[in-house]
Amino acid sequence: MRINGKNHRTIWLKDNDPATVQIIDQRSLPHEVVIEDLRQLVDFENAIRDMHVRGAPLIGSAAAYGMYIAALKIPKQAGFDGYLLKAAEKLKATRPTAVNLSYAVDLVLKNIKNGQSNAEKTQIALETAHQITEESVEHCQKIGEFGVKLIEAVAAKKSGQPVNILTHCNAGWLACIDYGTATAPIYQAHSQGIDVHVWVDETRPRNQGARITAFELLQEGVPHTVIPDNVGGHLMQHGMVDLVIVGSDRTTVTGDVANKIGTYLKALAAHDNQVPFYVALPSSTFDWNLRDGVREIPIEKRGAEEVKYIQGLHEGMLKKVLLTPAESPALNYGFDVTPARLVTGLITERGICAASEEGIRGLF
Amino acid sequence: MRINGKNHRTIWLKDNDPATVQIIDQRSLPHEVVIEDLRQLVDFENAIRDMHVRGAPLIGSAAAYGMYIAALKIPKQAGFDGYLLKAAEKLKATRPTAVNLSYAVDLVLKNIKNGQSNAEKTQIALETAHQITEESVEHCQKIGEFGVKLIEAVAAKKSGQPVNILTHCNAGWLACIDYGTATAPIYQAHSQGIDVHVWVDETRPRNQGARITAFELLQEGVPHTVIPDNVGGHLMQHGMVDLVIVGSDRTTVTGDVANKIGTYLKALAAHDNQVPFYVALPSSTFDWNLRDGVREIPIEKRGAEEVKYIQGLHEGMLKKVLLTPAESPALNYGFDVTPARLVTGLITERGICAASEEGIRGLF
Repeated sequence: MRINGKNHRTIWLKDNDPATVQIIDQRSLPHEVVIEDLRQLVDFENAIRDMHVRGAPLIGSAAAYGMYIAALKIPKQAGFDGYLLKAAEKLKATRPTAVNLSYAVDLVLKNIKNGQSNAEKTQIALETAHQITEESVEHCQKIGEFGVKLIEAVAAKKSGQPVNILTHCNAGWLACIDYGTATAPIYQAHSQGIDVHVWVDETRPRNQGARITAFELLQEGVPHTVIPDNVGGHLMQHGMVDLVIVGSDRTTVTGDVANKIGTYLKALAAHDNQVPFYVALPSSTFDWNLRDGVREIPIEKRGAEEVKYIQGLHEGMLKKVLLTPAESPALNYGFDVTPARLVTGLITERGICAASEEGIRGLF
Repeated sequence: MRINGKNHRTIWLKDNDPATVQIIDQRSLPHEVVIEDLRQLVDFENAIRDMHVRGAPLIGSAAAYGMYIAALKIPKQAGFDGYLLKAAEKLKATRPTAVNLSYAVDLVLKNIKNGQSNAEKTQIALETAHQITEESVEHCQKIGEFGVKLIEAVAAKKSGQPVNILTHCNAGWLACIDYGTATAPIYQAHSQGIDVHVWVDETRPRNQGARITAFELLQEGVPHTVIPDNVGGHLMQHGMVDLVIVGSDRTTVTGDVANKIGTYLKALAAHDNQVPFYVALPSSTFDWNLRDGVREIPIEKRGAEEVKYIQGLHEGMLKKVLLTPAESPALNYGFDVTPARLVTGLITERGICAASEEGIRGLF
C-alpha cells in the first residue's frame, strides 16, 4: 500500500544486495518513515522482540528471512544444521503469542532438509521466506475479497450513510506484507467506492492504532477517527458502530481468538449491543493443537516501561515522556483471548466461517 | 489525605484571605504539586472546564465556592441577584455530565434567598460552600465504613493473599475533598491492616488513573499497579481481580451509572467473569429525574487534542507530545453509562444497596 503516494511493502530484499533485508522500523511511525537494514541474525531477533516489525503475519515473514540470513552467515566453527536449529530457537523465543512465527521458522527448517549442500539449503531458506511472504500477500487479498461482502451487506441497508467499522490495534498492511488482514476488506470496500469510516482504537500501551492504523488509513485516504480504547462501548451503545473487524495472533481450532490486549473488552461490548464482531486471519494463524484459548494460549508479558513512558512528537523531535509516578509499578500484557462465543465469524483466505471447530474444519 | 506526609484537602479558603480560594491544580500531577489561587468567577469556570479540579464531588464544591466569590465580587453596575443567576448558568455550563455541579449551584441559589442583605447572602453562599464541602468529607468517610465490609468479606476468604481491587479513573480524595468515593473503602481497609492491592486503570485520554490515583495510593503507601485500560478483562478472566469499585458522575434513580468513559467495558468484563462490580457515590450524585441512563444522561464531548496529545515528564520538564498523525481526527467522549443490570451494588453514605429504584429509594 502507499506511503506518500508510492507503493511499499513492509519487508524486502535490498536492491543489489541479497545479504541484506530491509524493513520499515515501525517504532517511529507516524512521525518518521525509517528504513532499517537487517544483516545479522541478531538484527532480526531485536527487530522482532523490540517491535521494529510487529503483527503476526509480518513477524512470520521476518523470522523466515532471519533464517535465510542465518544460513547465509554461518559463523566460523559452527556447524550449518546445528546453527540453524539454534537460530530457530532464538527467533521463536523473541515473541511467544503469535503462532505464525514458529510456523514460518519450522517451515524453513523442514524445507531445507531437501537441500543437498549448504548453498542449496540457504537458497531454499530464501525461497521459503519469499513464498511465505507472497502467500501472505495473496491471503490478505483473498481476505479482502471475502470480507468486503460483509461491508457491502451493511452498506446496502444504510442508504448512503457511511459504514462505521471499529478496529483494534493494527491488523493493517503494516502488520502483514500488504493489504492487511482486518483492513483488507476496508481497503477493498474503499476502492469499490463504498462509503466507509473507521473507528481506530488507540491501542495502549504501544498505540499501534493511533500511530500505525491511523497512518495507513490516512495514506490511503480512508476516512477514520482515532478514539481512546475506552470509547468503543459507548459508540456501540449509541448505534455508531456497524461492524467490528480485528486481526488475530493465534486462533484455536475451537475459535478462541488471541489478539492485542483489549480485544476481549470490545468483543463483550459488541455482543452486548448486537454488533457483528469479525476476526480476519490467514490460516497460518490457526493453532490446531489448542482447544481452550483462555487457558492455553501463552500471553506475552512485556516491560513496565512501555506503560509508564510514551513516545510522541515534540517540536519536531521524537521524545519519550513519563506518565505515571516514577515509583508506581505497571503491568503490561500484550494480548488477551476472546472466547469463540463472542465472535460472529472468522474471515480467512478460504472464506468466512463460524468461530467453531466445525466452522474452521469446514474450510479445509 | 497525605502528600509528602502532610495532610491536604483539594480545595480550601486561603489563610488570612477570605477573598481567595485555593486548589491543587491537578493537571501537573503526579510530577508537580501546584497550588492555584482562584479569585474571580472566571477562574472557577476555567478551573472546572479545563480540569484543574475534576471529579464529581470536587467540582460541586468548587462551583459552590465559585458562587461565593461571584457574590463577593459583584461587578459595578450589575445587580446582585441577576449577576448570581448568570454566574450559576456559567458554572453549570462548564461541564455537563456530573449532577453534583448543578446540585451545588442550585443549593447556593436556594439558600441565599434567606439572606436579607447582599452581605448576608454572600455569607450564606460561603457557609453553603463550606457545608457542601464538609458534607462531602463526611459522606466519603461513611462510604469507606460501609464499603470496607465488602473488602473484609473477600479478605476473610483469601487467607492472607492480597485482595485485588480494580478501579477506573480517579474517584479518590483528589476527586472529592478527602478520602474519595471508590478509594474510601480501600483506604479504610489499608488502615485496618487488610492486605489490599489496587489495579489502577490508566484512564485514557486524561490519564486520571495513571497520574492521579497512582499518585494518591503511592502517597498513602497502598500497594498498586498501573495497567492500560485494555488489561482489566484479561485480569478478570484469570482470577486476578476480586472486586471492582468505581465512582460515578451521575446515577439515575433506576441505578444506571454514568462514570468516566470505559467504565462500561469493565462492567461487562466483571459481569462475564462473575467479579462483583460496585459503584461508590454520595447521594448528591443521584439524579431523581432520569430513568434511562444510556439515553438520557448528557455525555460530555471534549476536544480532540486531549486524545492526540499527551503530557508527561521529559528530562525534568512537563512536555506535551503528539501521538497520532497530525491530520487524523480524534473523538473524545468524557463518560459512558453502565446499565444497572451490570452493577452489583451501590455504596453510599447511607449504606449499600442494589442498583435499582427499589434499592435506591430504600435508602431514603
